[in-house]
Amino acid sequence: MRVLITGFDPFGGEAANPAFEAVRLLPDVIAGADIAKLELPTVFAACDAMLEEAVERLAPDAVLSVGQAGGRFDVSVERVAINLADGRIPDNAGDQPIDRTIREGGPDAYFATVPVKAMVRRIRAAGVPASVSYSAGSYVCNHLMYCALHYAATRRPGLRAGFIHVPFMPSQAVDKPAATPTMSLECMATAIAAAVEAVVDTVDDLRAPEGRDH
Amino acid sequence: MRVLITGFDPFGGEAANPAFEAVRLLPDVIAGADIAKLELPTVFAACDAMLEEAVERLAPDAVLSVGQAGGRFDVSVERVAINLADGRIPDNAGDQPIDRTIREGGPDAYFATVPVKAMVRRIRAAGVPASVSYSAGSYVCNHLMYCALHYAATRRPGLRAGFIHVPFMPSQAVDKPAATPTMSLECMATAIAAAVEAVVDTVDDLRAPEGRDH
Amino acid sequence: MRVLITGFDPFGGEAANPAFEAVRLLPDVIAGADIAKLELPTVFAACDAMLEEAVERLAPDAVLSVGQAGGRFDVSVERVAINLADGRIPDNAGDQPIDRTIREGGPDAYFATVPVKAMVRRIRAAGVPASVSYSAGSYVCNHLMYCALHYAATRRPGLRAGFIHVPFMPSQAVDKPAATPTMSLECMATAIAAAVEAVVDTVDDLRAPEGRDH
Amino acid sequence: MRVLITGFDPFGGEAANPAFEAVRLLPDVIAGADIAKLELPTVFAACDAMLEEAVERLAPDAVLSVGQAGGRFDVSVERVAINLADGRIPDNAGDQPIDRTIREGGPDAYFATVPVKAMVRRIRAAGVPASVSYSAGSYVCNHLMYCALHYAATRRPGLRAGFIHVPFMPSQAVDKPAATPTMSLECMATAIAAAVEAVVDTVDDLRAPEGRDH
Repeated sequence: MRVLITGFDPFGGEAANPAFEAVRLLPDVIAGADIAKLELPTVFAACDAMLEEAVERLAPDAVLSVGQAGGRFDVSVERVAINLADGRIPDNAGDQPIDRTIREGGPDAYFATVPVKAMVRRIRAAGVPASVSYSAGSYVCNHLMYCALHYAATRRPGLRAGFIHVPFMPSQAVDKPAATPTMSLECMATAIAAAVEAVVDTVDDLRAPEGRDH
Repeated sequence: MRVLITGFDPFGGEAANPAFEAVRLLPDVIAGADIAKLELPTVFAACDAMLEEAVERLAPDAVLSVGQAGGRFDVSVERVAINLADGRIPDNAGDQPIDRTIREGGPDAYFATVPVKAMVRRIRAAGVPASVSYSAGSYVCNHLMYCALHYAATRRPGLRAGFIHVPFMPSQAVDKPAATPTMSLECMATAIAAAVEAVVDTVDDLRAPEGRDH
Repeated sequence: MRVLITGFDPFGGEAANPAFEAVRLLPDVIAGADIAKLELPTVFAACDAMLEEAVERLAPDAVLSVGQAGGRFDVSVERVAINLADGRIPDNAGDQPIDRTIREGGPDAYFATVPVKAMVRRIRAAGVPASVSYSAGSYVCNHLMYCALHYAATRRPGLRAGFIHVPFMPSQAVDKPAATPTMSLECMATAIAAAVEAVVDTVDDLRAPEGRDH
Repeated sequence: MRVLITGFDPFGGEAANPAFEAVRLLPDVIAGADIAKLELPTVFAACDAMLEEAVERLAPDAVLSVGQAGGRFDVSVERVAINLADGRIPDNAGDQPIDRTIREGGPDAYFATVPVKAMVRRIRAAGVPASVSYSAGSYVCNHLMYCALHYAATRRPGLRAGFIHVPFMPSQAVDKPAATPTMSLECMATAIAAAVEAVVDTVDDLRAPEGRDH
């Protein structure tokens, strides 16, 4: 079994993006699954194609994307992605969509196909605060999540896809004026690994031969 | 040179107190100063005497106390302690003072005698969010800080005293309903060590022989 | 032209629900449109049918529902409703759905058919903080919004539907322990009236005869 | 009996200061006490002398100052003022003190001489969220509070002095990017009037002739 885990590069004037920094810290094998890591640009027009290319090449059973949600307090596992791109700031290629449909003719939304609640429970059991989120926003994070789910739904029915948002890391808050919640990269990596375990469990269950004894 | 660093034990129903857990992670020597560590009970009527006893025994040049301030976002270095004890909850001995003067005849407040702003700058330079705080509250933390400063002012003029508040650690927020900021113990330990460096610098400067070239 | 505005009754142990209290303060005519007000129970299994019944009876051009989102800081205009009911607490009839599909066979989500951004702009111009929200949660508020949009999409194509979330009102925060943002009912009523003006403008524009000069 | 109530003028780039705007809404008589209102400049070097001049002229029994504490969620009644001025931003005269002692030779702090907890209870009873605060900061608000208490302590022993901080008002948050708690001016005025009632009660009690029946 293989899980592809992506993280974005820095955006919005930040020197680093905790998403990929945390992904970098993950081991190469989690719960028996091979972990492939991919850094994606915070660019609407590029990240989806790069993700699809990596899926074609690596044929993972699941893809889990990680993004920074500055201002959030805990690790949030996203439940839904919407067919809408709307940027408060431009992306790293200067593109700032306003009310743009991501996939013409696509449904208004897709629910994640990873076990969101089980992931949250597993992260909490690892000692890291986590919650279910019902909005991945309208920026590149939601875009990538929607695109991955649309791609899976239309082209790769067996592929599971999900998204995890992480807070700022401590160094990002040092020069911010207001109260800013943060989380260390080690905590994030612990959380992502725990989430992957929940994903692996689910996929394994589905693959179990008939008659398997639970 | 020697610095005594104290941390409180758990209170308010928490299973652990990040204050002493972080102190535990400190090395035995920081910036050339010997570090002595002391866990204190979250008890109004006991923590001050235990601190004084340790100072008599260890004769440190500075005492830095660390306490948990659940709900705060960063490491805060306290600038002032007030002559007032008022508990929202009882302490670990069941004592819940209301509008109680800590030291009869003592001044309404004492300013910290450690270099508060230099400590904040040093903590930030180490990558951890930090700020100056103008209130250590009215619970056991403020009580200990006031008592240490009163003791130094009246009995040990050369002793410097200060207080650092740390946020909840991640595991404490797992079961809390609302958005709760946290910080890892490793970050806290990095911050406390950086603060000690600033304290050591100040004391060293004062001790430098006449004619020292800056 | 007629606009139906609904607000929920109290839930979750609160003595009052600012949503309907604010709706109560609205005038009977806003921007030339007749305003009909309806209090709905915070009950998954009842609020949708009562809304549909009122629409059948009153034949409004638009329906705007208002709900309490305790913990939010400003008036938020919802952009999307999802086909999922999941309650952290039971509703006022004791129903606590877990991962329940609201309308079997319905799409995963609907976008609001009121002019969300124009509503936010108009509310801000009236001096009240407001923002676009991309999640109405998964409780009765989202349920009602989804049901209204599904009903319009499948049975009343011309009907526009939207949802506004308001913060707690001040009296609700008096006995809450933590920092709780609030807004006065007068501010909320000002905001809702401003939002209705934006809705009326949009509907009027669509109804304008050919050749109308903009 | 007479109570002097002061409020500051706008600072920090804000178009208005809710402190004096709320004071403006107060009636001329509260609980039988005559209310005198005074707008003060947000200027370290001027506000204290103007307050003293007004006290000399009006001979109030109590002075209650009101200031804006942007970012706070409720009305906070200050318990202590410290002998320290330290500005994150310059005042309205361009003065930005760093670690400046307010009154040379003055004590490190003064406790408020108004009944802080009774004021908080009365404000809450009026339906407005309120709490005791142990820090008035280190800007002009704390400066004025310290100066008023020092003046009373050294020159007008019978004069009671206190300070109330109010949040931003809604219009101030419209263009701020992050989540900003606000309170309507009407709520603030209700709170200040309730606080004055508590102050009047206390002063009346002290003035009551021996044998007064409670």
